[in-house]
Amino acid sequence: MSATPATSRVHIVGTGLIGTSLGLALSRAGWSVTLEDQSVTTAALARDLGAGSLDHDASGADPDLVVVATPPDVTASVVASALERWPAAVVTDVASVKAVIVEELRAAGADLERYCGSHPMAGRERSGAISGRADLFHGRAWVLTPTPETSAAGVDLVRRAALATGAAVTTLDATEHDEAVAAVSHLPQLAASLVAARLEHLPASAVALAGQGLRDVTRIAASDPGLWTQILSGNAAAVKALLMEVAADLQQVIGALDDLAADRTSALPGDAPGARGVLAAVVAAGNAGHARIPGKHGAAPTAYETVRVLIPDEPGQLGRLFADVGDLGINIEEFKLDHGLGQSFGLAEVDVVPAVSAALAEGLSQRGWRIHG
Amino acid sequence: MSATPATSRVHIVGTGLIGTSLGLALSRAGWSVTLEDQSVTTAALARDLGAGSLDHDASGADPDLVVVATPPDVTASVVASALERWPAAVVTDVASVKAVIVEELRAAGADLERYCGSHPMAGRERSGAISGRADLFHGRAWVLTPTPETSAAGVDLVRRAALATGAAVTTLDATEHDEAVAAVSHLPQLAASLVAARLEHLPASAVALAGQGLRDVTRIAASDPGLWTQILSGNAAAVKALLMEVAADLQQVIGALDDLAADRTSALPGDAPGARGVLAAVVAAGNAGHARIPGKHGAAPTAYETVRVLIPDEPGQLGRLFADVGDLGINIEEFKLDHGLGQSFGLAEVDVVPAVSAALAEGLSQRGWRIHG
Repeated sequence: MSATPATSRVHIVGTGLIGTSLGLALSRAGWSVTLEDQSVTTAALARDLGAGSLDHDASGADPDLVVVATPPDVTASVVASALERWPAAVVTDVASVKAVIVEELRAAGADLERYCGSHPMAGRERSGAISGRADLFHGRAWVLTPTPETSAAGVDLVRRAALATGAAVTTLDATEHDEAVAAVSHLPQLAASLVAARLEHLPASAVALAGQGLRDVTRIAASDPGLWTQILSGNAAAVKALLMEVAADLQQVIGALDDLAADRTSALPGDAPGARGVLAAVVAAGNAGHARIPGKHGAAPTAYETVRVLIPDEPGQLGRLFADVGDLGINIEEFKLDHGLGQSFGLAEVDVVPAVSAALAEGLSQRGWRIHG
Repeated sequence: MSATPATSRVHIVGTGLIGTSLGLALSRAGWSVTLEDQSVTTAALARDLGAGSLDHDASGADPDLVVVATPPDVTASVVASALERWPAAVVTDVASVKAVIVEELRAAGADLERYCGSHPMAGRERSGAISGRADLFHGRAWVLTPTPETSAAGVDLVRRAALATGAAVTTLDATEHDEAVAAVSHLPQLAASLVAARLEHLPASAVALAGQGLRDVTRIAASDPGLWTQILSGNAAAVKALLMEVAADLQQVIGALDDLAADRTSALPGDAPGARGVLAAVVAAGNAGHARIPGKHGAAPTAYETVRVLIPDEPGQLGRLFADVGDLGINIEEFKLDHGLGQSFGLAEVDVVPAVSAALAEGLSQRGWRIHG
């Protein structure tokens, strides 16, 4: 049994989206939260939103936990200052790359026993205190990255704070974390950007053929270049290692396509031996990797069945569909709307567990829906 | 004014998913459809499903239009045979790569005046006659690729058939088409496969951190290796040209990350001049390309606003949400459900035109929904 109290005093440095959201969540959970920010206005806004009290308003008791939620490029130095400023406090940060921070702290001779890194994997489509939400971390992964020196009590305190926000907490060491996010976040971002970049100078008649596949692959290509430059810079070694693997695969594919293209224009066309095997192997390796992505709720992947329904593009049609699905007592696992070129209706893909897909299709047909595939 | 009749006699060679669906669509539109397939059983199944009559059942009159819907690797030779077998018919095909077919027909001395290639860009998650649907082409792009020799009457007849299925018809030359699908379909497929392939041997603790970005980027990585080997082989030159561009960008990024990683471990860390600029430029080019992807219905991209709503994971909740949105008289443009790790609720992203987003958020709040961001 832990002797630490259920709630504690937490001090948050940096009241942007993450710091403010954390203050809102922990205040709501009954923690005593104080706030500071380089910008007095920003800190006051976060206070006015309910994220906590300003430092000088508080009782003056030292915090049990300090959370550094500054931009990533200054995180390590702010953590080091916090460790000195509050000699009894546990200090964590929320940067999305972890090993570089530990390295800098170690080089600066910081007290790593009281430092436990963390990474709440929450959305960042909007920024600033004004976008802060108490439920930002609800259901999101929150990775703890203790150092070998970090005390058990330190890890426990950061874990309790993360759990209090409703996040799903896991623990990795900093290098494992950075290698993981390189594969599940940083490489996908670069791949989306590199695919989308090819569209920049494509004829409009070609871009017009974009379908759902392209839209899915490139959705995150709309991300902020400044933020991603900081993230990729901080995880340079791990991202580079993955990109080298991708580049090697890419050279194999280029070689295979070159053989196939040369074979087509050759006076004596042969069969470009091996080339088709390279292409099939790349797609098959993608199949194998894709199959490992967990289903929703962190459960093992589930093979849902998809029922496709034609939706007239008018207000209320989706409402009617979902009301009908609700009447049938069927739970929707995943849902996606697809729209065709030049048409005034959409195709809804309703994913359900296999046991109920036939009942869903039949029930919707009886209610007048056009089922499609 | 065209002198051709509104409907015609069409003969379909190959009754898989595409051929059967086309037969169903054109039969429904009042065309006279005959069918053949290498497999007598498959052709009979397509007939039984209502896709048309079998060849030997028909009147014996020659078709006005022949559609070759065989696997891509035999398409050119089947088209050449059809042009000889019916000396007055227009012949088209439905393969997803076009220039290679024209080359083979030209080399075989085929009558290109009566050939007009086409590519209906319809889904292929399931295959075979049994999966055929009359509405498979509804709202999908259907590209016509006439050769310089193709007669105007030939193009017109293929266009009328495509329009009769409900498809949105556009015209490109074969090489333009192949370059377009290399960028909007073939490169995204390879990128998804290469990113997903990195997950194959990743620790489970790392794969568990997968979020919506990774899911979107890799969704199409579940595609069939055999089919994609045929598609990529047929478009080898265009895909290779794009991959060379991607490989060049990738080498730049690798070089920049290498500079940044070396700078971190150097005894005299500098600033890796230029490296951050390379990373920012790649993400910015992705922004620019992404912005060119048309919105739904082939319209110009629209900046929708997203209202995020917390959804308890129980039957009927989505129905209740959509019923409430319908009551507000608001049309949903895009909709996506996101689920967090280890949680029993989801986050719905409801995209609407900016003019109504505030009304939607307010109306849903009043009805008891938790709005999130």
